[in-house]
Amino acid sequence: MTQLKDLQVGDAFEGLYLIKQADLRQTRAGKPFLAMIFQDRTGQIGGNLWDADDHMVETFTKGKVVYMRAVKELYQGSPQVNKIFLRLPENTEPNNPKDFKPKSPVNEQELREYISRTIFKIENATWNRIVRHIFKKYDKAFFEYPAAKTNHHAFEGGLSFHTATMAQLAEKICEVYPTLNESLMLAGILLHDMAKVIEFSGAENTTYTLKGNLIGHIVLIDEEVSEAIRELDIDNDKEDVTILRHVLLAHHGLQEYGSPVRPQIMEAEVIHQIDMLDASMMMMQTALNQIVPGEMTPRIFPLDNRNFYKPDWQSN
Amino acid sequence: MTQLKDLQVGDAFEGLYLIKQADLRQTRAGKPFLAMIFQDRTGQIGGNLWDADDHMVETFTKGKVVYMRAVKELYQGSPQVNKIFLRLPENTEPNNPKDFKPKSPVNEQELREYISRTIFKIENATWNRIVRHIFKKYDKAFFEYPAAKTNHHAFEGGLSFHTATMAQLAEKICEVYPTLNESLMLAGILLHDMAKVIEFSGAENTTYTLKGNLIGHIVLIDEEVSEAIRELDIDNDKEDVTILRHVLLAHHGLQEYGSPVRPQIMEAEVIHQIDMLDASMMMMQTALNQIVPGEMTPRIFPLDNRNFYKPDWQSN
Amino acid sequence: MTQLKDLQVGDAFEGLYLIKQADLRQTRAGKPFLAMIFQDRTGQIGGNLWDADDHMVETFTKGKVVYMRAVKELYQGSPQVNKIFLRLPENTEPNNPKDFKPKSPVNEQELREYISRTIFKIENATWNRIVRHIFKKYDKAFFEYPAAKTNHHAFEGGLSFHTATMAQLAEKICEVYPTLNESLMLAGILLHDMAKVIEFSGAENTTYTLKGNLIGHIVLIDEEVSEAIRELDIDNDKEDVTILRHVLLAHHGLQEYGSPVRPQIMEAEVIHQIDMLDASMMMMQTALNQIVPGEMTPRIFPLDNRNFYKPDWQSN
Amino acid sequence: MTQLKDLQVGDAFEGLYLIKQADLRQTRAGKPFLAMIFQDRTGQIGGNLWDADDHMVETFTKGKVVYMRAVKELYQGSPQVNKIFLRLPENTEPNNPKDFKPKSPVNEQELREYISRTIFKIENATWNRIVRHIFKKYDKAFFEYPAAKTNHHAFEGGLSFHTATMAQLAEKICEVYPTLNESLMLAGILLHDMAKVIEFSGAENTTYTLKGNLIGHIVLIDEEVSEAIRELDIDNDKEDVTILRHVLLAHHGLQEYGSPVRPQIMEAEVIHQIDMLDASMMMMQTALNQIVPGEMTPRIFPLDNRNFYKPDWQSN
Amino acid sequence: MTQLKDLQVGDAFEGLYLIKQADLRQTRAGKPFLAMIFQDRTGQIGGNLWDADDHMVETFTKGKVVYMRAVKELYQGSPQVNKIFLRLPENTEPNNPKDFKPKSPVNEQELREYISRTIFKIENATWNRIVRHIFKKYDKAFFEYPAAKTNHHAFEGGLSFHTATMAQLAEKICEVYPTLNESLMLAGILLHDMAKVIEFSGAENTTYTLKGNLIGHIVLIDEEVSEAIRELDIDNDKEDVTILRHVLLAHHGLQEYGSPVRPQIMEAEVIHQIDMLDASMMMMQTALNQIVPGEMTPRIFPLDNRNFYKPDWQSN
Amino acid sequence: MTQLKDLQVGDAFEGLYLIKQADLRQTRAGKPFLAMIFQDRTGQIGGNLWDADDHMVETFTKGKVVYMRAVKELYQGSPQVNKIFLRLPENTEPNNPKDFKPKSPVNEQELREYISRTIFKIENATWNRIVRHIFKKYDKAFFEYPAAKTNHHAFEGGLSFHTATMAQLAEKICEVYPTLNESLMLAGILLHDMAKVIEFSGAENTTYTLKGNLIGHIVLIDEEVSEAIRELDIDNDKEDVTILRHVLLAHHGLQEYGSPVRPQIMEAEVIHQIDMLDASMMMMQTALNQIVPGEMTPRIFPLDNRNFYKPDWQSN
Repeated sequence: MTQLKDLQVGDAFEGLYLIKQADLRQTRAGKPFLAMIFQDRTGQIGGNLWDADDHMVETFTKGKVVYMRAVKELYQGSPQVNKIFLRLPENTEPNNPKDFKPKSPVNEQELREYISRTIFKIENATWNRIVRHIFKKYDKAFFEYPAAKTNHHAFEGGLSFHTATMAQLAEKICEVYPTLNESLMLAGILLHDMAKVIEFSGAENTTYTLKGNLIGHIVLIDEEVSEAIRELDIDNDKEDVTILRHVLLAHHGLQEYGSPVRPQIMEAEVIHQIDMLDASMMMMQTALNQIVPGEMTPRIFPLDNRNFYKPDWQSN
Repeated sequence: MTQLKDLQVGDAFEGLYLIKQADLRQTRAGKPFLAMIFQDRTGQIGGNLWDADDHMVETFTKGKVVYMRAVKELYQGSPQVNKIFLRLPENTEPNNPKDFKPKSPVNEQELREYISRTIFKIENATWNRIVRHIFKKYDKAFFEYPAAKTNHHAFEGGLSFHTATMAQLAEKICEVYPTLNESLMLAGILLHDMAKVIEFSGAENTTYTLKGNLIGHIVLIDEEVSEAIRELDIDNDKEDVTILRHVLLAHHGLQEYGSPVRPQIMEAEVIHQIDMLDASMMMMQTALNQIVPGEMTPRIFPLDNRNFYKPDWQSN
Repeated sequence: MTQLKDLQVGDAFEGLYLIKQADLRQTRAGKPFLAMIFQDRTGQIGGNLWDADDHMVETFTKGKVVYMRAVKELYQGSPQVNKIFLRLPENTEPNNPKDFKPKSPVNEQELREYISRTIFKIENATWNRIVRHIFKKYDKAFFEYPAAKTNHHAFEGGLSFHTATMAQLAEKICEVYPTLNESLMLAGILLHDMAKVIEFSGAENTTYTLKGNLIGHIVLIDEEVSEAIRELDIDNDKEDVTILRHVLLAHHGLQEYGSPVRPQIMEAEVIHQIDMLDASMMMMQTALNQIVPGEMTPRIFPLDNRNFYKPDWQSN
Repeated sequence: MTQLKDLQVGDAFEGLYLIKQADLRQTRAGKPFLAMIFQDRTGQIGGNLWDADDHMVETFTKGKVVYMRAVKELYQGSPQVNKIFLRLPENTEPNNPKDFKPKSPVNEQELREYISRTIFKIENATWNRIVRHIFKKYDKAFFEYPAAKTNHHAFEGGLSFHTATMAQLAEKICEVYPTLNESLMLAGILLHDMAKVIEFSGAENTTYTLKGNLIGHIVLIDEEVSEAIRELDIDNDKEDVTILRHVLLAHHGLQEYGSPVRPQIMEAEVIHQIDMLDASMMMMQTALNQIVPGEMTPRIFPLDNRNFYKPDWQSN
Repeated sequence: MTQLKDLQVGDAFEGLYLIKQADLRQTRAGKPFLAMIFQDRTGQIGGNLWDADDHMVETFTKGKVVYMRAVKELYQGSPQVNKIFLRLPENTEPNNPKDFKPKSPVNEQELREYISRTIFKIENATWNRIVRHIFKKYDKAFFEYPAAKTNHHAFEGGLSFHTATMAQLAEKICEVYPTLNESLMLAGILLHDMAKVIEFSGAENTTYTLKGNLIGHIVLIDEEVSEAIRELDIDNDKEDVTILRHVLLAHHGLQEYGSPVRPQIMEAEVIHQIDMLDASMMMMQTALNQIVPGEMTPRIFPLDNRNFYKPDWQSN
Repeated sequence: MTQLKDLQVGDAFEGLYLIKQADLRQTRAGKPFLAMIFQDRTGQIGGNLWDADDHMVETFTKGKVVYMRAVKELYQGSPQVNKIFLRLPENTEPNNPKDFKPKSPVNEQELREYISRTIFKIENATWNRIVRHIFKKYDKAFFEYPAAKTNHHAFEGGLSFHTATMAQLAEKICEVYPTLNESLMLAGILLHDMAKVIEFSGAENTTYTLKGNLIGHIVLIDEEVSEAIRELDIDNDKEDVTILRHVLLAHHGLQEYGSPVRPQIMEAEVIHQIDMLDASMMMMQTALNQIVPGEMTPRIFPLDNRNFYKPDWQSN
């Protein structure tokens, strides 16, 4: 069974794939066909199923796993599958849609344990209590949601994986710069993207909620902190509270990117830089995974529209 | 008694003025002098009191009203007073520092009545209750604070005067565009700068508080709304609440100016434009008041560093 | 008869519409079809008429009113009409293309009366004479032309409607700020976009003329003022003339938008802001009219590519 | 007699110089002194004349030529003259202020002849007549005015020298690119800055006039062309007229620099580039003239704040 | 035989053309067709050859000259050829692909002679030796390569033609400004784009090499100079060497365009401006050549997305 | 003996300090005084020594260590020392200027050992040989030079300290992201700023050399690599060489900051981010060291002109 990322143009192949999209359309001559996108864990590819009869339209719907036999070709410079034959899986063939979606490189259990240990390391009692309070409230969603709609970490569990990776970086960077307050670094990182569970509609078919559109996750986490301190009876005028809120509000670094204030605490600046580092690493790695050594990736818009070269030591 | 704005270079004059600043310094030859700034309701001017003996240093201190006889001259292109003689006010001479500071063109009583009538016009019950709740909490400060530290409406009562002027503009603009929701316009305007009473240290010698620096009045008012709805037991997920919060968060118009979200509700966009209009009117009028027809004002930094011409129909 | 703006995806409908465009094309298989756009007063929608024979091609041409029966569907995310049946209107069915185009919300007669009253309010004799002179010259075109090729007020009569709305705003804003010179405000507004009657080719199928492309309406109105003062024998060196010309030249606010000078007269700045306000109101309202409450408009490029939310109080 | 540009720090020197500025000031101890700036054809330098008695104040006034003996020193990093002795010129010593100001490298007579020959080369009758008409009107001022207030060609006759140099460049560039219309190039260049004679107050102590400030030389020359065609009875709708006006309006190249339209005719683009070339050459040469080989000039703001290196082949 | 640039929409025509591209595709109904682009010396145009059988697919391949009979039509606003009939050239019909590609306006022999004379004019021995050394090394490629992949001078021999035109401009500009060091101007121009022979893959089907992508021609020519001075045993610390390297590194003018240093030598600035002038002339001329007088060109992206008007004196 | 960073305004203090600057000036009344700047390891402060006689002028010169008794005061908002008494150190009092300059937090021996171990970790033979070759050539200077003229790491040994800190960060970040090529990371970091030893004049009174100004350290290190591969007889066309050169050329991240190419290799991007992180950490820490908790630092220009808050856990 061939993984989509390993297919070369011209390859005839077969295997099981998930139908990500299946739209009924008409040719200009009026004949119905299905415009489909197939995916597996390693990538995705589109193609048209011509002469789709009613049975096919009802059978091959979005979200189903199917067995496909087809050829990968180029159409106007973009790869697609042609000469498609489809059938439903039989007997013991894998059948679970979840197995065909990209997933976090680390499993949820490990992430839970790491996050839990990390919370334990926050020595400042105020911050520790606030973090615990908010994690208890959003525990389930935090380990399910992606970290972004389309760019980096846009997979189930992406939010917790991104958060955990940033926390790891913070621990290591604090070893190099002992003047950084590690408790603040960890508290800030654990909460910084948490309100994406309010901003986004869910882990699947992620869209923005009304609050996501009109308020945004940066102000929404600030509101969560306000609510937490009230419920925990922490003094709102305590400097530690103001500083934690600043770190969260400033984590996009620039006002152009939606932070109402720029980082003006040393830890706020470093958290912002760590966030950028992990986001760019994830985008570069994802793009480089799709190509073979000696090629350049397509241009990556959020990385200033740069494309990246894959040297020969990066085998797939 | 001459008002400072009417003084020409070369004029010898006398009158009562407020000492805004009085710093003891030394000439290069080691002799003490007082570097002073005097003000009245119409403007301010600096000058040095030479050969200041201990008695003078103790007498002529910041915040005192004094009788001055002096000459207005130019020093390196900037006006200053020279040949200064000072004494304290006598008998019935005016003596109240408040009378020598710029003040709101409208008195507090009128402003209070206008604001009160305006709140009454907010027909949406949710918004009306939130506005009343927050106005009750910050009533006193709202009518005392300036609207800005240095640029526009930087005088005692400036915050309420700016707010009331914007509300007047909103009422008139809603007559032209009946599709605008007047309740939302008024609620948004009444609250938009309210958190400056938290951002600023006070009505006098205004500086930024720690929360002002690290969080800013835009997020602080959002927090006030969150607190209000909890205390008033309003549902946080109500669309009206999200919309009011959006209008407040977006009122700076651009993320570069500290709004975490850009206006995406029609009323949010119009409030932003009204805010710009009133701020620029106040800055232009203040600058034009300092010059005579036929001249150009100094460059005004927040107005893209433009200078403005005073035509002859604008007498002082 | 269904209005286009009220159609839902999936609706089968019928009614009379105007053919805005009808291009003969070929399918890839070589068969002719008509690529059409239909419009009524409330919106427009495209669709293909398949298997178009010679008779159909000759009958269903651009500018004709037709009776259509069809279904609204989605094609690659954009709405279009399919399964189209067309015939010409019969008997008493409406047949006048004018009735199927968007039009100014106020009729020409009311606009003419309002503009006439407004000119009367210009008390400064110089400005009044110049305005009258130019209005006499371009009277007819002024009430026919749109205010823009594609963005705001891009309908017949849009120029006069936009101008009148701005004048109304100016009158109201002058009540709030009595230091503004109302005569200058009105004279500036009445003339500011007048040279669009030279810049544009006409009220229908509007394109740019050579002068529009190479000189632009901002400099063209300046030239009209120069010509007017010569014909009226007004002294070109009079300060009032220079000021009026400045107000007109500066009305785009920024040099990047084609104003050779930035506003440096208080009234010039306010006129620029009123212009922006009315243009953005028109663009927001137009976009919001196309959608139902709870949705967001498509992104509006000249409003910094923002999309706007339609709250539920905005019924259609 | 030492030229100012040849003075080294530490040099004691004497010679005749022009007083460019002489302001009476007081030391902090109350003693009067004259803050002066001296100039000759090659540069200028400031210094204070201490203990200035009434006679000195009356004698050594702005605009007088004086004999000075002094020492060039550094004060806070900037050169100034100290230990100043001054007297008026005697007998046959040079006495004419004009001889102490920077001047055009080419004399007026040569410039007049070159300009006259250049007009003759404009073969298009329309452009030729317009150019002649406007040159006749402003002949005197054109050969007296500077081309800029402070940056490039800021000397008497600078306008005609800059214009002539650009015309020379145009003739040579047209030899390389024969598709360029040389008549249009020359007509455009001859007129492009002509309205600086309206924008500026005069050749001495140049300031901006009201029209200069509020309208600017780009629109002012457009008005001159409009007036010329009317007086010459040339049809305003002739394409040649529109093109000439476009070339003049577009010569600043970017709207940010005050051109209401960007160059959209090939010749307009090239004229803009020639203008930039001559302005930057003049600024670089002027700055390099003030320093010795091996040094870098001060930063030149209008050249993106760059400083330039003077290689050893550029002796003074 | 009709040249492509002279074809009007609607013209039926015939003639010999080069197949620039021929991709086999399928209609939605599954029928094969060839998506083709044809070119001659004056332009290019696309079109589809329907019902392409195997023989046609094998015969009409990229790089072949063919006889075509067809009609020029508009498809969605863009011109294409339809109703295509193709056959191979017969007997004495022209058959050489080279004759159907755009070419340098000057032939290689003339360019070689001009370049040779120009090198001879470099009087500074250091620069002369470096230039000779590098020209000897890359002689062949220099006269074959284009000067750019897609924008200006993107034809065979474009690199030498662009270089020679710039040298001509430099000679003429040095006559106007005698303070410019002509030897440096010529040496800098001759070498400035030379490393495009390393940056590009070749004269045909030009792509970027790995060094082109990751290092770029600006640093690559610097490396060539370093190598040359070592082989010629010239002292690397000589000021002349540093200056030549600076001129080459700075020739893109702005760091945003890939120059690691901005021009800080007068000659470096002027070379940059000459480079811009020739590039923009070539782009404007090429675009204007495709249209008839009275039209505007399509927008030219590297010229700030402007479009240019073709006046009637520019016949084709 | 009081350290400068611990002085409060108003403190009378005494101790040994280094004279960083001592300029002879005159009061306006003509009396000589010394304008001085004093420094110790923790900071610096200015002040004037009045009535400086010839002996004092000769004794208290730049570079001498002196015993000072004085008072710290504010003059126009900036701290300075007044009422200064100075004498030379006596007997056993510290006398070595080096002890009064800021220095690297780690001593040279430790840095040398760390760098040596780091080179050893470069497993790729090509990169290892190139790094060794260049380190051998510039060994001495590398451990003496600062990393910048004024901003970050502007102290003796700053270059090696900055390089070593970045290498530490790289090692830790590679643990988090195992797909990064650690050899390339380390080789790139070790060389990235090495050419500052050519760009700067030396460790003391650092200025830019001619090559520093006109070529810059980014291209200079590229040249060093070219020379190294020639001397080591490594093939210039090897991909590893091109990649290393790319990493060095791209380390400023943006072309605006002088990189001729943007990072297009994953490791190049990460090295750039590590460089930014260490530079900003050093600037923030240095600024925070000068103030007490509860204050904000002055604005730091290269950090987007932000100022930073010092929370109370950051004792000095």
